Amino acid sequence: MSDVPFLPACPLPLTEYPAVVLAHGGGGKLSKQLIERIFLSAYPSDELARLHDGALLELPGTRLAFSTDSYVIDPPFFPGGDIGSLAVHGTVNDLAMCGATPLYLSAGFILEEGFPMADLWRIALSMRDAAMLAGVRIVTGDTKVVDRGKADGIFINTSGIGAVPPGIDIAATRLVPGDVVLVSGSIATHGIAIMSLRAGLEFETRLESDSAPLNGITDALLVALGTDVHVLRDPTRGGVASALNEIAEAAGQGIRIDEAAVPVLDEVRGACEILGFDPLYVANEGKLLAVVARHRAEEALALLRAHPLGREAARIGEVVADHPGRVLARSRIGGLRVVEMLSGEQLPRIC
Amino acid sequence: MSDVPFLPACPLPLTEYPAVVLAHGGGGKLSKQLIERIFLSAYPSDELARLHDGALLELPGTRLAFSTDSYVIDPPFFPGGDIGSLAVHGTVNDLAMCGATPLYLSAGFILEEGFPMADLWRIALSMRDAAMLAGVRIVTGDTKVVDRGKADGIFINTSGIGAVPPGIDIAATRLVPGDVVLVSGSIATHGIAIMSLRAGLEFETRLESDSAPLNGITDALLVALGTDVHVLRDPTRGGVASALNEIAEAAGQGIRIDEAAVPVLDEVRGACEILGFDPLYVANEGKLLAVVARHRAEEALALLRAHPLGREAARIGEVVADHPGRVLARSRIGGLRVVEMLSGEQLPRIC
Repeated sequence: MSDVPFLPACPLPLTEYPAVVLAHGGGGKLSKQLIERIFLSAYPSDELARLHDGALLELPGTRLAFSTDSYVIDPPFFPGGDIGSLAVHGTVNDLAMCGATPLYLSAGFILEEGFPMADLWRIALSMRDAAMLAGVRIVTGDTKVVDRGKADGIFINTSGIGAVPPGIDIAATRLVPGDVVLVSGSIATHGIAIMSLRAGLEFETRLESDSAPLNGITDALLVALGTDVHVLRDPTRGGVASALNEIAEAAGQGIRIDEAAVPVLDEVRGACEILGFDPLYVANEGKLLAVVARHRAEEALALLRAHPLGREAARIGEVVADHPGRVLARSRIGGLRVVEMLSGEQLPRIC
Repeated sequence: MSDVPFLPACPLPLTEYPAVVLAHGGGGKLSKQLIERIFLSAYPSDELARLHDGALLELPGTRLAFSTDSYVIDPPFFPGGDIGSLAVHGTVNDLAMCGATPLYLSAGFILEEGFPMADLWRIALSMRDAAMLAGVRIVTGDTKVVDRGKADGIFINTSGIGAVPPGIDIAATRLVPGDVVLVSGSIATHGIAIMSLRAGLEFETRLESDSAPLNGITDALLVALGTDVHVLRDPTRGGVASALNEIAEAAGQGIRIDEAAVPVLDEVRGACEILGFDPLYVANEGKLLAVVARHRAEEALALLRAHPLGREAARIGEVVADHPGRVLARSRIGGLRVVEMLSGEQLPRIC
């Protein structure tokens, strides 16, 4: 998604500033140069070009969704993406999970003095491409530089605004027993791709993060099913297990899943076994959970599967009246176990 | 502004987690506990309480302003405020400078493992108070934790949404020769307060940051003057000199100021002399520049002075047809000098 097919040369002459210096965050000439040559070159925008500290936007009178996320992933470049594409996808997806059409993003950079300018340029282009593919515009931004040793290369915050069309009502409180839980594809891929990279694991095929914008897929579901979509959630940090627990708790309903029905790529399952992870707890970035009314479940599944990002979609469970607030899983060998929220930290800096 | 008169005890038992651990950013139980006990306790909100990744907001059909800033100030606590109040004021002010009424904020935290929980609590309360005084609500948030040594205690991003009332048109392109430049009070106080703290300088009276929300003052100006307010700008990083240069360049007009007319507190001027700074280049956080139509200048000045945050407001210059794009200052001894944008970095991590 974030591979940059055509990478224009970095417009700030590398001979002059091969790396970020403190003055790039000072609010003076070098700040202006950085913004103009890197960010405005990468994603030109009338709003950004005003070089004001805020963007002015026109939105029809409607419900808004507003979301924020900071990205601190280590390493910033990984198979299948980088911190820039991830920062766009993550916030686009948070808005999409509100039932909103994502429209505008802000981009706030915290850079460590010495961060290579060419890497910043590559990340800015990757954000441009990710924003273009997701149909959103980066309209305001900010750059701070901290002294060497006081950050880790690059951190990015993206905040986003989306419009929620009429006739959409996404809320855990709308869950009723019988509702069906769907997942849009195989889980745990992002987390295991990053973890394998850090651990130096190699596979027959290169394992790539599945980081992707999910607003196309949520649009398709919401246009067809309307209020029969009860909950949407992207299971990022804490994985599918934690997301389902949050939903069950907020709904005051139980959720029961069938572990054998949850799609996991073979190499991901293998890596989980080697690394000692349960795929249900591993972070995703390009997958969603949808809880839909029972009588629309097959239609929803067909819609998911018809989308390029949902080909491996599956029906994995249902809402039940028993054990309200808890998630239970039928294991591959038939037993029923409680699926708790993630305790502790499984994999720091996964996003 | 951000002194917390009544500091409730930190609700997360300090004996259990006296400091941030990686799992507080892991998306599981400890993340949830941190959000519920610290952030929801400090600023309860229906939107936040949904614990969803985005806030749903109702806004009448209008123009929106959208702004983002990351705060990396060193040290995080300083006389007159802390990184939390600053993060609220800064984004509120960016929205106010768009002519908008600030409404909603997001709060994204990047915490270093080991950051004291009591400090986080103090900062959350300070954000609560600053938001309440500015009349804005924190409606969505995010927390990431990075390993020890990979950040510097705490960084905060705030993004904000405001509504721009009809009949407001803030744009540098509206400047015409004869327009009057006003400042809302004495300059350079924030920067010198932080710098003195770092340098260990002492004064007869404690020098405090003037960090404050400026939306009350911009409201007063805009309600009375409407489109006769041409530009509003808070001169933060790069100071008054850089802000005026940005305005002059964007307007394609010249700006001439009278240095003797620019208010600077005696102890700030003294510290500038000791530290070798020109007050025109030092960052402010609670002051604004307003460029208004000449025939409304006296009225505007009176309005500023009638506001508690504008008592030292002054008329400091005007827009001129000569030297388009440049800023000139008449010095105290009568000569005219070019005021350039800040070159290089004067004072890193001032905000």
